[in-house]
Amino acid sequence: MADALRYDEGAIYAIDQTALPAKTVVRKITTTGQLAEAILKLRIRGAPMLGIAGAWGVAQAARRAGSKRGATRNAVMAAAQRAGERLAATRPTAVNLGWAIERSLGRARLEAAAGAPPATIVKALEEEAAAIASEDAAACMAMAETGQRFVRGGARIMTHCNTGSLCTGGYGTALGVIRLAHESGKDIHVLAGETRPLLQGARLTAWELGRLQIPHAIVPDGAGPALIARGEVDLVLVGADRIAANGDVANKIGTYSLALAATESQVPFIVVAPMSTIDPSTPDGAAVEVEERDGREVVSVLGRRVAPPGSGARNPAFDVTPSRLISAIVTERGVAMRPYRTSLKRLLAQ
Amino acid sequence: MADALRYDEGAIYAIDQTALPAKTVVRKITTTGQLAEAILKLRIRGAPMLGIAGAWGVAQAARRAGSKRGATRNAVMAAAQRAGERLAATRPTAVNLGWAIERSLGRARLEAAAGAPPATIVKALEEEAAAIASEDAAACMAMAETGQRFVRGGARIMTHCNTGSLCTGGYGTALGVIRLAHESGKDIHVLAGETRPLLQGARLTAWELGRLQIPHAIVPDGAGPALIARGEVDLVLVGADRIAANGDVANKIGTYSLALAATESQVPFIVVAPMSTIDPSTPDGAAVEVEERDGREVVSVLGRRVAPPGSGARNPAFDVTPSRLISAIVTERGVAMRPYRTSLKRLLAQ
Repeated sequence: MADALRYDEGAIYAIDQTALPAKTVVRKITTTGQLAEAILKLRIRGAPMLGIAGAWGVAQAARRAGSKRGATRNAVMAAAQRAGERLAATRPTAVNLGWAIERSLGRARLEAAAGAPPATIVKALEEEAAAIASEDAAACMAMAETGQRFVRGGARIMTHCNTGSLCTGGYGTALGVIRLAHESGKDIHVLAGETRPLLQGARLTAWELGRLQIPHAIVPDGAGPALIARGEVDLVLVGADRIAANGDVANKIGTYSLALAATESQVPFIVVAPMSTIDPSTPDGAAVEVEERDGREVVSVLGRRVAPPGSGARNPAFDVTPSRLISAIVTERGVAMRPYRTSLKRLLAQ
Repeated sequence: MADALRYDEGAIYAIDQTALPAKTVVRKITTTGQLAEAILKLRIRGAPMLGIAGAWGVAQAARRAGSKRGATRNAVMAAAQRAGERLAATRPTAVNLGWAIERSLGRARLEAAAGAPPATIVKALEEEAAAIASEDAAACMAMAETGQRFVRGGARIMTHCNTGSLCTGGYGTALGVIRLAHESGKDIHVLAGETRPLLQGARLTAWELGRLQIPHAIVPDGAGPALIARGEVDLVLVGADRIAANGDVANKIGTYSLALAATESQVPFIVVAPMSTIDPSTPDGAAVEVEERDGREVVSVLGRRVAPPGSGARNPAFDVTPSRLISAIVTERGVAMRPYRTSLKRLLAQ
């Protein structure tokens, strides 16, 4: 599969996810402004990928500042800091973005405090971003392997939004578990929630599943809970944008209704997310800031208006699933289960 | 508001609901084939309206047969019967369609058994259809009035699909309650579920609400449950396509997830439907045949493909909400509450 995001000598190359599946367009991004816009417009998206993109963005800004004649250590540090602040502000809900940026800046501060020259700081930021990306790929594989214990042969798996290689550094989170199950010969069938308003399920997950030749069908968001109730789903696998200390999970809008239905029908509801998604400083779901996006994303589909001229729309990008509805949280360090406050703390301490 | 459906000298004139809100196109329907196609393509839709359309369709077919030179009583009866069978088979879930057709045919049989000439049978069928339409309008008003006891001033009301004047003979069912609340000065605000795949909420309900100047916002189907959980909804009002003897309700796909969320958050979840929607011969929700429509309705939006070429879709048109999740069922004869088997039987016996 084509790299969804790569970095080469100060330029970020990203598949424009708003153009998929009709076209595979790779955009070259050379400024923080371009990167912020790409994130805001969801050309680049998905919690782990936002972290990777944020780290590359900080490195890119530092490199740009460092390439100027007579660049000082302070100028490079200031540029990295400014880029980090601007990028972190683009999307408030996914914790990975701020986490990766802070990790990168921390590394740069360490180098700067040790008196490193500008070029060394830039190199350190590039190393850190590459490390975040490759650690995410390794985390994906670890989650995919750990997640297999929940997937029996022939399982009919419901998923939501896109959690695959387009939004991580590797196999994906929930979709990584699905991919490895398929590659292990488990004969699974996937129901992919279409994920209105931006149809990441119908456009991106279906695109990934098709390329991987995994049998699947797209499902309108309102139909997922009904199919669960009708006994047509053995397992629900979703990703996460932020996991609070008590195990409440913020994820793409529509996740909560799947969790309600799964709990009602005693179908396992499993969250797959890297440790970087866990935010111990968010006590519970009520403390999560949920991004409300422009209502125009709802009243139009693929640029064509569906609603009457005078009608607006609500467009919360995420919802919060209370931990009591979650059967397990799969991370690269192992599985958290109820009581989540304890089990997540244990994983974080490892 | 323009008549969504009217009949004039053998012709049915129907607003094409697939063209709204972009265009208000009135289609003239003169044959059973045209009517069946209009119903199959959802140009005419909504449980009560399907009943009205079915009755007019039977009258239309009888009139056509009766207008032929030398038409016999048997020829008119056979034409009515054939039209009824064909129309009843178009959509399996809404009970009103078969109910209205059977009511009309029963009236015709009575006339035929009494030796009425062909023209009298045709006239009887036209009277019966007109009666079904005007009774539905009266039922809408009665439901709207009865439903007011559940709507306090300032209420934020979530609804789903379209249940207004486009799909009934009058004010509507759930939307009729909303309309009367607005006209009574209750200062309500409506959240209209967009209702994928065919967007009846975003297209039709928003269109009706706009014309009635009722404040509203469209909500993606996956966001409705989340807004309920966040305390942004005081009341959920929906219609029904079939109500089983035990109170289980088949309604537009997406209804079940709203009922789950409303129950979880102790928000009243109220079904508004005429008595003709209650089917005592369906013991419970499991016995309801749920129409599965063409997956192409899901993978394309407004004629533009959103999913990759190889991806198909599931498209159940309805879901079943178990009666335990329903706070009350409002009919034109009064309100049914738990235990529904008893309360519905009481209403049916009135």
